[in-house]
Amino acid sequence: MLKLEFKVTPWDVEGMVDYDKLIEQFGTSPLTDELLERTARLTKSELPIYFRRRFFFSHRDYDKILEDYESGRGFFLYTGRGPSGPMHIGHIIPFYATKWLQEKFGVNLYIQITDDEKFLFKNLTLDETKRWAYENILDIIAVGFDPDKTFIFQDSEFTKIYEMALPIAKKINYSMAKAVFGFNEQSKIGMIFYPAIQAAPTFFERKRCLIPAAIDQDPYWRLQRDFAESLGYYKTAALHSKFVPPLTGLEGKMSASKPETAVYLTDDPEEAGKKIWRFALTGGQPTLKEQREKGGNPEKCVVFKWLEIFFEEDDKKLMERYHACKAGELTCGECKRYLIKKVQEFLKEHQKKRKEAEKKVEKFKYTGELAREQWERAIPEKLR
Amino acid sequence: MLKLEFKVTPWDVEGMVDYDKLIEQFGTSPLTDELLERTARLTKSELPIYFRRRFFFSHRDYDKILEDYESGRGFFLYTGRGPSGPMHIGHIIPFYATKWLQEKFGVNLYIQITDDEKFLFKNLTLDETKRWAYENILDIIAVGFDPDKTFIFQDSEFTKIYEMALPIAKKINYSMAKAVFGFNEQSKIGMIFYPAIQAAPTFFERKRCLIPAAIDQDPYWRLQRDFAESLGYYKTAALHSKFVPPLTGLEGKMSASKPETAVYLTDDPEEAGKKIWRFALTGGQPTLKEQREKGGNPEKCVVFKWLEIFFEEDDKKLMERYHACKAGELTCGECKRYLIKKVQEFLKEHQKKRKEAEKKVEKFKYTGELAREQWERAIPEKLR
Repeated sequence: MLKLEFKVTPWDVEGMVDYDKLIEQFGTSPLTDELLERTARLTKSELPIYFRRRFFFSHRDYDKILEDYESGRGFFLYTGRGPSGPMHIGHIIPFYATKWLQEKFGVNLYIQITDDEKFLFKNLTLDETKRWAYENILDIIAVGFDPDKTFIFQDSEFTKIYEMALPIAKKINYSMAKAVFGFNEQSKIGMIFYPAIQAAPTFFERKRCLIPAAIDQDPYWRLQRDFAESLGYYKTAALHSKFVPPLTGLEGKMSASKPETAVYLTDDPEEAGKKIWRFALTGGQPTLKEQREKGGNPEKCVVFKWLEIFFEEDDKKLMERYHACKAGELTCGECKRYLIKKVQEFLKEHQKKRKEAEKKVEKFKYTGELAREQWERAIPEKLR
Repeated sequence: MLKLEFKVTPWDVEGMVDYDKLIEQFGTSPLTDELLERTARLTKSELPIYFRRRFFFSHRDYDKILEDYESGRGFFLYTGRGPSGPMHIGHIIPFYATKWLQEKFGVNLYIQITDDEKFLFKNLTLDETKRWAYENILDIIAVGFDPDKTFIFQDSEFTKIYEMALPIAKKINYSMAKAVFGFNEQSKIGMIFYPAIQAAPTFFERKRCLIPAAIDQDPYWRLQRDFAESLGYYKTAALHSKFVPPLTGLEGKMSASKPETAVYLTDDPEEAGKKIWRFALTGGQPTLKEQREKGGNPEKCVVFKWLEIFFEEDDKKLMERYHACKAGELTCGECKRYLIKKVQEFLKEHQKKRKEAEKKVEKFKYTGELAREQWERAIPEKLR
C-alpha cells in the first residue's frame, strides 16, 4: 500500500505530529495498518483514498465493528449535518467515505440533519435552518447512498427523536454537559438539552453504531460512551478524519463563513476555478528560477493536499507529482490548472446528481425501506 | 350569590388570609365578583360550585379571556396531568371546572399528559409513566369532555411538541430556568429542557390560552408570559384554584404517596368509605356532651371542606349543615356518613364512566376532530 511511502514524507510526518497529539489528548486509537488491511480483506475491496492515505487516521472500537461484522451481528452507520449554510468540499468528503462503508459492508445508515441544533446555537430562524436542511440534503443524496438502507431525517420533523432522547437526557446532568460543551448561565435550555438529541441515533438499532466524522466531534460521542451500556446499548464506535484545509492555508479547516477559503458544492465551476487560481496557497518558490533550482514544497501546498485528500485518485500520479514538484519540474500554475480541472469535473458531476436528487428526497426521508420502518415506529398505530 | 355569606365565615376568612398572601406573592389578581358575574352572564348559566364557592380564587388575564370571547376572537383551554400514579379526588376537581368552561364557552381544550416529565423527575421508567398515562387518561375522559373539541396527548407520543418547544427553548436561559425550578449542577438536562415542553401547548392556537390549575403551578406560566409576545403569541391567561385538603388535615394538599390522605378515583367505594370514616379529620368536640353544648368547628373540618368544594352541590343544604354544626345539632359521625354516601355515589358513577372511557381513548387521542387536526400537522404530508 502506498501509505507506507507517504508516512515518511515530511508533510505527513508534520501532519501526523499534530494528529498524534490529538489521539493522545482525546484518548482514541490510531487507525493501524492491521485494521485497514482487515477492512480490505473483509470487504474484498481496494481501500478508497480516504483510508489508504490516512485521511481517516484514528478510531474508537472500529476493531469491534469489524468483529461484529465478521460474527454476523452486524453494525450500522450514523452521521449528520448541521444545516446552517451551503456545503463545501470539506463537508462532503466524509460522506463519500461513509458511502464506501455502507456499500462495502451493506449496512444501514442514518443521517441526522440537525435543523434544531443550528436554530438553537446560531442566529438563524427555524425556517432558515429548514431551508438549509433541504439544500444540504440534495448535496448528501448526490453522493449516491442506497435509498432503501439510508434514512435521512430532520430533527424538527422526525420528532420521535425527542422520545428517544429522554432516557439519555436522564443520564446526563448539567455539570457533565457543561464540561463537554462549555455551557454557562446564559446558555439557552434548548442548547443544554441538545446533546441528548445528538446521541439518540446511536440507539436506533441494538447493534454497534459506527460514526465516521472529523476528530473534533469526538467529545460528543465520549459522553455517549459514558452511559450507553447502562441503557442496554453499545458504546458507539467512531472513525475520525483529519480536516480538509482551506484554500488559503494549511491551518485550521474550511470555514463556511469565509467564502474565499472554500469551494462550495453549488459554486459555478467557472467561478470555483477562478477562486482556486486566486486564493489557493501553494508551496512554490518566489520566482520561477528558484522553483526550477530548489523545487517546491508539496508538504506546504494546499493544492497538493486537496489532490491527496480527494481529487487525485491515482496513487502513482500523485507520487509522480510530488517528486516532480520537489525536483523543480513543475510550476504552481501547472498544478493549480490540474486541480481546477479536477474540481470542475467533480462539481459538474455533483451538480448533475444534485439536480437528480430533487426527485429522490421523498424516498430518503419518507418512503424508502429504512425510512418507512423508522416512521412506522414514530406514528401511532391508529393513524398509520 | 351565596359566596358573599361564605366570605365572612371564619374558615373562609382564615383560608383567604393565606390565599390573599399568595395572590400578593405571585402577583396575580383576585377573581372578583364582577368577573364571576360576567362569566355567568356570558355563558347564560348559573356558576358551578368551583366558582361560586371561590375554589378558583385568583387569575391572570381572565378579564382579557372574557373580552376575547365577547369580541368573537375566542380563546382555548389548556390543562394537563403528570402521570406518576393513580388520580385522586383532588386531581379531578379542576378537570370538572375545565369541562364546565369548555361546555359553556364552546372552546377547544388541550390536555397534556406529561409522561416525559414524570420519567425525568421521578424514579420511574418511561414504560411506567406511559402505563400511568393510560390509566389517568381514562379518569380524565370519564369527566365528559367533548371528544371533537378535546385533544389528549402524551408528550412521549405527540413528539411534535419538541418542534414547538424549540423557539421557547431558545428564549429561556439556564439562569431563568434555575430561578423558577431550582435546578443545580446535578439536574438532568432533560429536566432543564422540560419547561419548554410544558409551555408549548400555550401556542397551539393563535388565540389567548386559558389554563385552569392550582395556584402552585403559576411560576411555570409566569415564564411563558415573559417571552410569549416576543414570539408573536399571547401571554397565557390562568384561573388559579386552591388545594383540596387531604383527609387527614387542612394543611397542604392530598399526596399520592400517602394513600390514607386521599380518596383515589379507582378506590373500591366500600374501602373509600372506610378510609373516610377512619382518617377524615373533623372539627368536632372531644365528647358528644361538649359537641351539643359548644357546637363543632366546620371551618376546621375536612369533611365540611370536601362537601363545600365538591360533594354538596346544594348551597342551601351546605349552609344548613354549617349552622347545625355550629349549634351542636350534628355529630361528626352524621356528617361523615353523609360525605361517605356522596363520595360513594360519585365513585360509582365515575367508575362506570371510566369503564366506558376505554372505548373513547382512540377518539380523544387520535381520531376526534381536534386530535386529527393536530396530528395532521405532526405527520409529514408524504406519510399521511
